[in-house]
Amino acid sequence: MSLKLYFSPGACSFVAHAALELAGATFEPVLLKLHRGEQRSPEFLALNPHGQVPVLVDGSDAISQIVAIVLHLDQRFPQAQLLPPAGLARTRALEKLLWMNNTVHPTFGRFFAPQKFSDDAACQALIKAHAPGQYRKELAEIEQWVAHKATPWLSGEQPGAVDAYALTLLRWGGLAGIDPQSLPATWALVQDFAALPAVARVIERERLTLNLYQSQS
Amino acid sequence: MSLKLYFSPGACSFVAHAALELAGATFEPVLLKLHRGEQRSPEFLALNPHGQVPVLVDGSDAISQIVAIVLHLDQRFPQAQLLPPAGLARTRALEKLLWMNNTVHPTFGRFFAPQKFSDDAACQALIKAHAPGQYRKELAEIEQWVAHKATPWLSGEQPGAVDAYALTLLRWGGLAGIDPQSLPATWALVQDFAALPAVARVIERERLTLNLYQSQS
Repeated sequence: MSLKLYFSPGACSFVAHAALELAGATFEPVLLKLHRGEQRSPEFLALNPHGQVPVLVDGSDAISQIVAIVLHLDQRFPQAQLLPPAGLARTRALEKLLWMNNTVHPTFGRFFAPQKFSDDAACQALIKAHAPGQYRKELAEIEQWVAHKATPWLSGEQPGAVDAYALTLLRWGGLAGIDPQSLPATWALVQDFAALPAVARVIERERLTLNLYQSQS
Repeated sequence: MSLKLYFSPGACSFVAHAALELAGATFEPVLLKLHRGEQRSPEFLALNPHGQVPVLVDGSDAISQIVAIVLHLDQRFPQAQLLPPAGLARTRALEKLLWMNNTVHPTFGRFFAPQKFSDDAACQALIKAHAPGQYRKELAEIEQWVAHKATPWLSGEQPGAVDAYALTLLRWGGLAGIDPQSLPATWALVQDFAALPAVARVIERERLTLNLYQSQS
């Protein structure tokens, strides 16, 4: 069955994009320009009514939700070990991936899209100003994971989904005024991950600058 | 290995609690009183530094994150089919479960704990007032899933994790002024789910009123 990935450069779709390349999958990458509202086109909304990337199209089935896509690819490409294959190691990787997805990612959302939380401009400004402090605390927690990990990668023995999410979240931190070099263990892991040939292909295709803090200053 | 579940009545730990009973697991339920701050005790923070329920203790391992707990229990009790066993049916159930966890649940969090988003009291009031409209839209989307489902349950052929989360989210709606009877397909599903002997045991142990809208009016 053919695979197609709808992604937007630097969005959380990076996790699915990296997973596909790490799995050695043959797939068609489709770039969606969010600033042009392409996620609101009738064609894309038919694939995902939430208008969000990533969407993985597997044959005739459109799948959304990063973690669901990772678990779907893990079923399809078990040899890639996008997650540890079983047992407590798998549960621990999922625990991290889920917390990144349901806590850290939404904290960045407060900074990135405060208009979702209130219609009041002054309140939006307060929400946007409040978020980076919390985001920094959450990245500091990831830093502790990386500093104390017992496996070569955050995902486990193999580079995988948790490492890809760490790259995405640390990279976003630069936009929120957080220098990745202030989180040295995560920054080293992210650079090692980015240097893997499979991941380097994704970074080149998405034309990503890893250190957005530096590029802003 | 022994199992122990830390839960708080009516919290999202209900999903893990129902999963354990549906799986026919032998486990020790441990009630944590959030209004007394028991989730901030040193003993509990040693199990989950985030101070959140649920925590599942499996032997000597403490596992947090609802979806990670569900996937862990699904590995341990595959015959219970807390999720469909494989393929696209499993991916579809996970897609729903993840959206509930990373989108609908946090929307309720804006209503329930607006102080997390700003230190300003007026802004907190605006956030709290804004959330129920969005929450209602999200529950309406779940209503469409239930109304158009092709399987007896939202999880699939067997009652499972997605049904338990639907019950939790609809029940919380009552607190936010949303009458569950305005979402009749979901309300019927939730009542059927609550009537299952395994789930009824959880509802009795947590002493839950399903319709919080009615009980407030």
